[in-house]
This record gives sequence, structure tokens and C-alpha cells, in this order.
Amino acid sequence: MSPSIAHELAKKQKEISVSEFFEKNKQILGFDSLTRALITSVKEPVDNSLDACEDAGALPDIVVKVEKIENTEYRVTVEDNGPGIVKNQVPNVFARLLYGSRFHTRAQRRGQQGIGVSAVVMYGQLTTGKAAKVRSKISDEEVAYECELILDTKKNKPDKITEDFVIWDNKPHGTSFQVHVKGKYIGGKQSIFEYLKGVAIVNPHAKITFMPPEGGTIVFERASEQVPPPTKEVKPHPEGVELGEMLSMAKYTESRKMTSFLNTEFSRISYRVAREICDLAGVPQDQDPQDMTLEQAGGILEAIKKVKIMAPETDCLSPIGETLIRKGLKNVLGDLKADFYAPPVTRDPRVYGGNPFIVEVGIVYGGGLSSEEPVQILRFANRVPLMYQQGACAITQAIEAVDWRRYGLEQRGGQGIPFGPAIVLVHVASTKIPFTSESKEAVANVPEIREEIELALKACARKLKTHLNKAAKKSKTRVKFEIVQDIIPMIAEKSAKIVGKPVPDIAGTITKIMNVVWIEDEVAFEKGRHHVSVKAYNYTPKSQSFHLHMLVPYDKIDEKTLKAKPIETRDENKATWDVKRLGSTDVFELAFDLKGVPQEQYDESEVYVSGIDAASVIGCEVLPGDWDLEHLRITEEGVAEEAEEGEEGEVDYDEGAEVINNED
Amino acid sequence: MSPSIAHELAKKQKEISVSEFFEKNKQILGFDSLTRALITSVKEPVDNSLDACEDAGALPDIVVKVEKIENTEYRVTVEDNGPGIVKNQVPNVFARLLYGSRFHTRAQRRGQQGIGVSAVVMYGQLTTGKAAKVRSKISDEEVAYECELILDTKKNKPDKITEDFVIWDNKPHGTSFQVHVKGKYIGGKQSIFEYLKGVAIVNPHAKITFMPPEGGTIVFERASEQVPPPTKEVKPHPEGVELGEMLSMAKYTESRKMTSFLNTEFSRISYRVAREICDLAGVPQDQDPQDMTLEQAGGILEAIKKVKIMAPETDCLSPIGETLIRKGLKNVLGDLKADFYAPPVTRDPRVYGGNPFIVEVGIVYGGGLSSEEPVQILRFANRVPLMYQQGACAITQAIEAVDWRRYGLEQRGGQGIPFGPAIVLVHVASTKIPFTSESKEAVANVPEIREEIELALKACARKLKTHLNKAAKKSKTRVKFEIVQDIIPMIAEKSAKIVGKPVPDIAGTITKIMNVVWIEDEVAFEKGRHHVSVKAYNYTPKSQSFHLHMLVPYDKIDEKTLKAKPIETRDENKATWDVKRLGSTDVFELAFDLKGVPQEQYDESEVYVSGIDAASVIGCEVLPGDWDLEHLRITEEGVAEEAEEGEEGEVDYDEGAEVINNED
Repeated sequence: MSPSIAHELAKKQKEISVSEFFEKNKQILGFDSLTRALITSVKEPVDNSLDACEDAGALPDIVVKVEKIENTEYRVTVEDNGPGIVKNQVPNVFARLLYGSRFHTRAQRRGQQGIGVSAVVMYGQLTTGKAAKVRSKISDEEVAYECELILDTKKNKPDKITEDFVIWDNKPHGTSFQVHVKGKYIGGKQSIFEYLKGVAIVNPHAKITFMPPEGGTIVFERASEQVPPPTKEVKPHPEGVELGEMLSMAKYTESRKMTSFLNTEFSRISYRVAREICDLAGVPQDQDPQDMTLEQAGGILEAIKKVKIMAPETDCLSPIGETLIRKGLKNVLGDLKADFYAPPVTRDPRVYGGNPFIVEVGIVYGGGLSSEEPVQILRFANRVPLMYQQGACAITQAIEAVDWRRYGLEQRGGQGIPFGPAIVLVHVASTKIPFTSESKEAVANVPEIREEIELALKACARKLKTHLNKAAKKSKTRVKFEIVQDIIPMIAEKSAKIVGKPVPDIAGTITKIMNVVWIEDEVAFEKGRHHVSVKAYNYTPKSQSFHLHMLVPYDKIDEKTLKAKPIETRDENKATWDVKRLGSTDVFELAFDLKGVPQEQYDESEVYVSGIDAASVIGCEVLPGDWDLEHLRITEEGVAEEAEEGEEGEVDYDEGAEVINNED
Repeated sequence: MSPSIAHELAKKQKEISVSEFFEKNKQILGFDSLTRALITSVKEPVDNSLDACEDAGALPDIVVKVEKIENTEYRVTVEDNGPGIVKNQVPNVFARLLYGSRFHTRAQRRGQQGIGVSAVVMYGQLTTGKAAKVRSKISDEEVAYECELILDTKKNKPDKITEDFVIWDNKPHGTSFQVHVKGKYIGGKQSIFEYLKGVAIVNPHAKITFMPPEGGTIVFERASEQVPPPTKEVKPHPEGVELGEMLSMAKYTESRKMTSFLNTEFSRISYRVAREICDLAGVPQDQDPQDMTLEQAGGILEAIKKVKIMAPETDCLSPIGETLIRKGLKNVLGDLKADFYAPPVTRDPRVYGGNPFIVEVGIVYGGGLSSEEPVQILRFANRVPLMYQQGACAITQAIEAVDWRRYGLEQRGGQGIPFGPAIVLVHVASTKIPFTSESKEAVANVPEIREEIELALKACARKLKTHLNKAAKKSKTRVKFEIVQDIIPMIAEKSAKIVGKPVPDIAGTITKIMNVVWIEDEVAFEKGRHHVSVKAYNYTPKSQSFHLHMLVPYDKIDEKTLKAKPIETRDENKATWDVKRLGSTDVFELAFDLKGVPQEQYDESEVYVSGIDAASVIGCEVLPGDWDLEHLRITEEGVAEEAEEGEEGEVDYDEGAEVINNED
């Protein structure tokens, strides 16, 4: 082999600037097709605007304008009322890759990478040859700063084409970003409109105005005047920290003792725990962390696994919450009505690689949804709707891995996206979402996250299954009922006629054939009130005694409307009724109105029975033995909370309930 | 709003080094789970080794060793016989991101980004705290250079821990790379073994030795001693070049005239075409490209669309080829046998964003494959098997978008991955594969590429459908045959008995009922020979004359075995037989042995008829009018070549073929 080959190859070796890399790999940043490029050009500045307003604790007011210039050239303008950006930072923020404020922060933000909006500027200049224009005003300046920027990709540095100070109407502060890009504007499923709608749903405190190229103005009004509580920055949770990371942290810490290093650099490590870790690992408590050896670091990681460390803080995360999940699902449904909203599931926070995260899942079923299509999947990450790369996303992969046949959906071979009239919504919130690429459209298949999504899906799917089982059982029994109630009287009548005797009382015969207690619940919403009713029909030949239990926010019950008082209430939403000696063919009814509960928070009553043989009850489930109903519980804020377990003793029934005679 | 907010936020703004970015986003580089991390740690250095050997025109001899150190720590060693790397380049090549030799090169290579192997070094130090070890020897040095490296992620610069010169046995040149990583070793579908097997299949000139952690040595022997012809570097094809790119090229070119700029910087633009473009765009031919305005650049791009520019060169691309596609499919099949190998389809090269690319597709069907599972998908890009992120890949998305029900596979609603006993292999080769992320596991959904994949899939699927139709028709007709041949003689016999007359000759009756010419072909492989037979049964009441055509490498026919000589042969593999006045119930047979054809190259005969009504022939297709059989053609090398069209005149039949009487 000629010696010159290695030398020749060496000559070609050189460094590439990160901008050159992405200029040549613009598909990685979300510019792989003209349609997607235009959406990305809107998404990145909007995400930034929302983050900026949140950082400043302001209610976002964002205006998005998309104009068609010619053929495939569009002008995108995004204006916000955020705090503005100080003059000397503007060029770097908008025209330099890997430059930003949030990279080293462990907090739930939309932007994390310092790439997004600068990538849009770069894509714009690459495809249209035109510079981006940024205007920004901070509240202590009289005038706004405006400049035209391009990104010098060979150096990854901003290049200012023009700059000026301008009067910006009466705007007190804010930022406007304008760029020309090559794109294609479309409506439908993967469109700017759908993206903004998704943003509006999960950010109800934001007002978003959209001026599409075809003219007109669409306003997504603010649904809430409350700025969401700011999510806190946190230190890494010790779980999942890597060996090399530990060594590097020890090298750069300002602490001079192992215990203070562990306490200062990690969340959830108290001095007591820090000492325990050092002892377990055999590392002196007062050793300088800079002297930590590879073996010591390994020992400390092992010790961390063994000591009891608290779960991560939750105030660094901002889940969407039950109400908004329902609202989001309803919004996607549009005019279609669903039969059933499974109560959304919010899992407890967990940790991957030191980053806390939380998973939420909601499912709707039936109604106008098609049963001949795959279920619709709605993906959100840190309150941003994910529009592309569905197949690459751990959310989709988790959905494909669940055997949905067990939960009442069709799925060939128990894998793949199931078919059925359902929408599945999944939200992952984290101080750091592990996206599969810089375009931030798919969550990577990190085992901890994947597992949590599957568990949340299954928990929510179980509720769907309960509903479907109940519906199936009811409909089957109803058919039987109808047959029995139609045919037996006819036989009786016919027989009586033939033998020339009077028609016998056949109620007893019917109950003997049916032999069930039939529970029927109804919820109707009218003028701000839920009319709730539960009826128990005794279609057995004997009289029956049992308890009915309901999950209901009983402090919202309008006392005047209450028909049959519960014998016991507790935990804010657990209520029990006593049904005593309900005669054969009699019916027991409990009914009441709820006041001040948002419509979507109470679609269906959760009713359970106890004290009766499960096989003879149709229409509701048997009370779980421990009444461990934490996931089913609805509180005032509509957020699932952990129920305190094991505090309940024996239920003490002390009051009878009203019994209505069916024959009245 | 407090003025301090903007200033406070400004303080947090800072630059992130590209290594810090990827250290925190290691999932983007293919390290999202322990299993995948270990595979990636093997894949990146192996890809580099293959590229290095290819650059040097050498037959690769690569040794991969994976050792378990403890728990989740593994040591990966990859050694090659490439040209080696000169001493002062070693640190940058192995421990610096975005540093490499191939980024600015438009040529088909595995590595493009200058990220891969340095990312492995970074992941190794992050998870195990240990440095990587590199040894390299170039052929004009006496000793090898060896160093231990880590990547200083704050600076994105290599940090040499140790360095030395060492004697490397008798190794003339080559590189060895060793790294400790946290990982998980598994077998099965997504494993190192499967990855290396895939590599061996599509790189038959490489010898790959694998020493897995469980012990033993697996050798994938070289199947070919020929180094594949080197793929050439090309200049960008003018198609799909962006406006901003054009401006930037004009700025940096050394040409001082528009015409020479266009001719020098682009492929396929001759001076004549360059002048035509300038004239159409209204740009002076001798203008300095540096003075090109935005409007002029736009005009030139418009002109490029209008003038006739040749398709891209193909010598920059290296498709897998028909033989290897079949071999690859067979290898995946293992002991299962397939019923049918659809002749692989290689599309003509096309261009996206100035980069030529080519798509190849192969399908196998039936045999031992399960019909209850989704079809298996095998993805390759630039001769590298893609193991992860199947759902994110344009290949998968194209498969999901094809309505496979038309081609005989099951698919609910005509979308999604179809079910059926089939394997679909797709290879995309390009001077620049647009991967969705730096982990290079999925091809982005670039419209031009996506479209080509769909077209190739459909072309290949049509062949599958033809096969399935033929099979279905034959089996249906065979059933009819069997009924007719069983029942009619019985009826005849019975009737004759009853009326006391001799059994009549019923052959005529059978032919009247069937009224078809039945073509049956058989291929059997034994002791290096293919026994090929084609029989034509005349089950019509009249005598028939027609031509039979076959695609067969007739220079491989063993003359001694030839039963019925063709009346004409041409283009190396087109042969025509004349069937003259084949009597009712007679059969014509042509048969021969093929010598020296690899088994997998001749599974099924491609037979066509002409000169007879198509409706009355069962078992083969009618000859396409123009005999445009370029995609069906099998040449000596097993590589599809373009057939020269329009050179054939009328077929001249000058010799009769042997007719065998069926009654003999």
C-alpha cells in the first residue's frame, strides 16, 4: 500500500462548523419538506415567545402572520409581548447555533437547545437569500432595537446587515421576528393552524392570533387569566447519573468536601443521606471531591442505588392536567361526540439520567369516531404539540407495544397501532425531554420513559375496558330484558285466553328469569348543573340489601335536590348509600344536582356496590376491597391527588335510605 | 414589567460547545438505551474502517471484539487493515466532534458527518470514566502510534492522556480502536451479530471476524476478492440547489465569469448549457459571479429548471445489485424457503438538493414465512444496515403508504405495514443520505426520495402480484382440470355401461370444457445445474400455433441437454421458441440444463407467449408489445442492465420446434 494514502487522506481532514453541518443537514432540524419547513419556521419562534413570557411571568399575547410572497416563498412574522431581548444579545440569540439561556437549566421549557430559531434564520437565507429581521423592545428603553441578520455558517456567528432604533407604536416591550422562507402552506392535519390550535389548548393562558396567507384573522382567545405557576429549576436527581458525569461534576464543584458536594450538586441528598452514601461507598466524608477516583465514583453510584432517596420534586414540572386533557380531546373531536372519556391518568414523577419527568394519558372512545381507522394519537412534550415523526416517538412505540385487544380495541396480533373509535393523548413533561433529533418532534426510546408511558396507557386503558365491559353487559342484559318483558306477558295473555282464565301476575316469573339487580346511572348537564341519578332495580325474586358507593364531589351537591341521603361521606368525594331490603321488582333511586362543576369534569358516575353477590349485579362494578380509588378521584381542581391509604376503618352505616316502590 | 427581566435573562445567554450539546443529548447520537448504545459503539468504528479501506482500495479485514468487563461495562475493540491515520490527526479524528474528511465530499460513503466515532469516545468516558485507546500504523512508518484519548467536551477538543510508539506485530498498516462503554449485550433481531451479518451481506469484499462476549469466534468470510469500483466524488447537480446556496457558491468560487462558474461548480453543465442558462436568465455570460444579485440567482435557478440538463452521473453511486439483494434476502430467510423472489428493481438515479441518489427494492414471498405477521422490512443506506428508528424512516413510511392490497398482501384500510409472508428490502444509496438525526438510523422524508422509494416498491410489487395471480389462476384451473379429468371419464364409463355401449373417447369433450393452453414451467437445482423445463399442453379442441419466449442466460445452456432448439436468441438472454400446429391434447416440451449459474439467480423461469389469444393461455403472461424487458433481464453478473430499446426488428422464425405427442 502506498504510504501516501494515509497522508493524502489526512489532508482532507478538517473541522466543520456546527452551522455548516446543519446547513447541509437541514432535514435534521425539521426542514425536510416544504410543508414541514414552513411549520417549523412558525413553531420555533412561537416556542421561544411562550418561553420568554413564562420566564417573565406574563400572559402571552402572540401574533403569527404568514404571507405568500411568490411561488414557494413565504414571509413569517411572529410578534410577542415578552420582556424583549437586550440589544447586544439579539444577534446571538437569532443567528448563532448552540447559543441560548436554557441549555444548562434543569427546568421544564419548550426550548432547550439554543438551535431552533437560528436554524430558521439559516434556512431562510439558504432558500431565499434574504436576511431575517428582528425588532425587540425592553421596558426600560424608549425605543425598540431593530436589525437584519444572517448567520455566517462558516463561522457560526451572526452577521448584522443593518441595525437601527425605531419607535414601536405604544408597545411597552416585546419581540418581533420576521423571516422569508421557502415553504408550502397547507391546511388539514399537519398544518400551522393545527399546531397553533394544539398550542392554544395546552397553554390556555396564551392568546394566539393567526393571520394565514389566504387572509382573515383567527384568534385563539385566552381561556385563563392565570399565568401557570413558574416551574422551578432543579439540580440533577442522583438517580441515573453516569459515572463520567459524576467525575466531571466532582472536578468542577466548588465544594471541598464529599458530603457538601453531594448535598450541593444533587437534589434530594440531605447531609444525612450524603454521609450515608460516603460510608456505604467507603469514601471519607471530608475528602476533597477533586480527588475522587474512578473506583470511588463507581462506589458512590452503587451506594446511591442502595440508600433511600426521595422521589424528585414535582414543582419543576408542569403537567397539562385533567381538565385540559379533556378539553384537548374534546377540541380534536370537534362536532363528533364521544361516548366515553376515560379519566386521565397522571403518573407520579420519575427520573431518567437525573432528569425528573412525568407522563399523562387521556383516552376518548366512541361517538362519531370511526371504528375503521387506526386510533388517533395526540402527542405533547412540555406542552408543545408534536406534529411530525410519529413513528420515531417513544409515545407511538409504547402505544404499539400495548396489547389493546385486552382493553377492547382491535389490533392484529396484539401489536401495532390499534384500530377503533378512539383518540389517545399522551403528554411527557420533563426538565429535559430526550428528543430523537434537534427538530424536537419525537421523544427518544429511553427505557425509563417508555416504561412510564406504557404503564400510564395501561392504567387509562383499564378504565376504558371497564366502561366497555359495562356497556356490553348492559346491552346484552337489556336485550334479554326486552325479550322477557315483551314475550312473557304475551304468552301469559295468550295462554289465559286459550284456557279461559284471567291473565296471571307474571312479575315473579320475570324476576326469576332475569335474577339480577340492575343499576342504571344517568348524568345530564343543563344550565351549569349536572343532574345525577342512580337507580337500582331489583329484578330478583327476593328482597335485597346492599350498599351503593359513588365517587362524587359531594360539597358540590345541591342539598335541596338530594333524593336519598348517603349514610357516609369521606375523603371529599367518597359517598356510600345504604339500600335496605329492596323488595322484588322494587327500585331504589338516589339523585341530586351538582353545582359549579365544569361540565367536562363529570361525564359519567363512578358507582360501585358491596354487600351483594357480584354475579347478580349488572351495571356497576363491585367495590374494590381496600377502596383504593386514588386514580379515580376527582378533586376541586380537577387534578388527581394521592389518596391517603389505610386510614379508613370499617364503614359504619347508620342511616337508611329512601326506598321507592316501583309499583307506585 | 420590571426592566431587569430582560437583563436577567440576558445574563444566562451563552454559547454551548457542540460536545456539551451532544453529551446532554446522547440519545440523538444513538445512545438512548444500553442495548442500542453498545451496537452504536460497534457500528461507528466499523463504518469508519470500511470507508478507510475503500478509500485506499483495499479488501477490508475487520476484527470486532466485545468483552464484558463487569455488570453493564463492556470493552469494544475494532481493528482494521486500512491505510492507518497519520499521528497528528489521530486525536482529532477520534475525539473531536464535527471533524472529518468526508463532510465536503459528494461521494457515497458510510460516514459523512465527522461525529460518529468521537461520539463513541464521549459516550464511553461519560458512562465509564475511561479513555479510549487508539493504535494506528501507516505503511511508511516502522512502528505504530498509540494514544489514550478523551474528549474535552467544554472545548470540543481532544485531550491526550498518554501517547507512545509501539511495535505492532507484523501488521503493515491499520487502525485499532478500543473503548469502554456502558451497554447491554443481547442476541436476536437488533443485535451486534445481526448488524455485522447485514454488513457482510452488502459488503461481500469484506472479511469480518466477530468475537462476542460469550466467547468463540464468528467469521463472515469474504465472498468476493474484488474491491468494488471506487465511487467518484461529484460536484453538485444543479437540480434542487437552493437560492442561498447558489449565492454562497457564487461568492466563494474562483471563477471570474458566470459561464465558467456554472461549468466548474456544477456537474452536467457544459459551457453550451451554461451560456443557455445565462441567456435565459438574462444574466451577462461574462459577469463576475461575485456580483450576482438575489434576482439574478433566482433567474438562474428558474433557467436551470427550463434547460435540458442530463441526469446525474451514476459512477458516484454504488448500488447493492440484484445478486446481493437476493443473497441478502436469502440470508434473512435462513432455513425458511421462499416461494418467490421478485426480481429486484433498481431505479434510475435521481437528484435531491444537488445530490444524486438511487433506490433499490427486493421482495421475497411465501414459503416458511408467517402470513400472520407484518412483513419484515430490511433497510439499507449506503450499504449500511439500518437497525433502529424504523418508524421514522422514509423507507417505512413509503411502505406504509403503498396500498398493498392491490399486490396481494393484507393491509387494513390500505395503509400501514402490510401483513403477509413477505420480506421487503430497500436500499437508498446517495452521495449524501439525509438522515433524520446524527445517529444515522432513518432516512428523512425528503419528497424526491420518498417518491422514488414508492415507485420502486410498486414496480417490485407488480412482479409479486403477477406471480400471485399466476399462482392463483393455475391453482383454480388445476382444480377445474382435476374435476373434469376425474368426473367426465367416470360419467362416460357409467353411461356406457348403462346403455351397454363401449366407453367413448372423451378427450375432445375435456378440451371443449377446458379450452385452454396450459403452460407449466419447472426449475430444479441439483449438483450445480438448473434443470429447466417448460411444457405447453393444448387443452383446446383445435390445433394451436404460437411462440414461447423466455428470459434465460442461454450461453449457460448445456447444449447436450437442450430439448427443442429456440428459433431465435438475442441480447444475451432473450430466447424464442416456435410452437407449430400443436394438436388438440398434445404437449410441447422444451427443456435444458443451465451450468454455472448461481442457484439463487434462477428460481423461476420467465415465460411469455405471443401469437395466441391471451384469454386462452393459463400459466404465463403475454409478451409485452415492445419486449421491453429491461428490468426482468438477468445478465452474467446478475446485475440488471439497461436494455437497448428499439433495435429489434420483426422476429424472424426459421426453425420449427420438436412436438411431442401426448398420447405416446
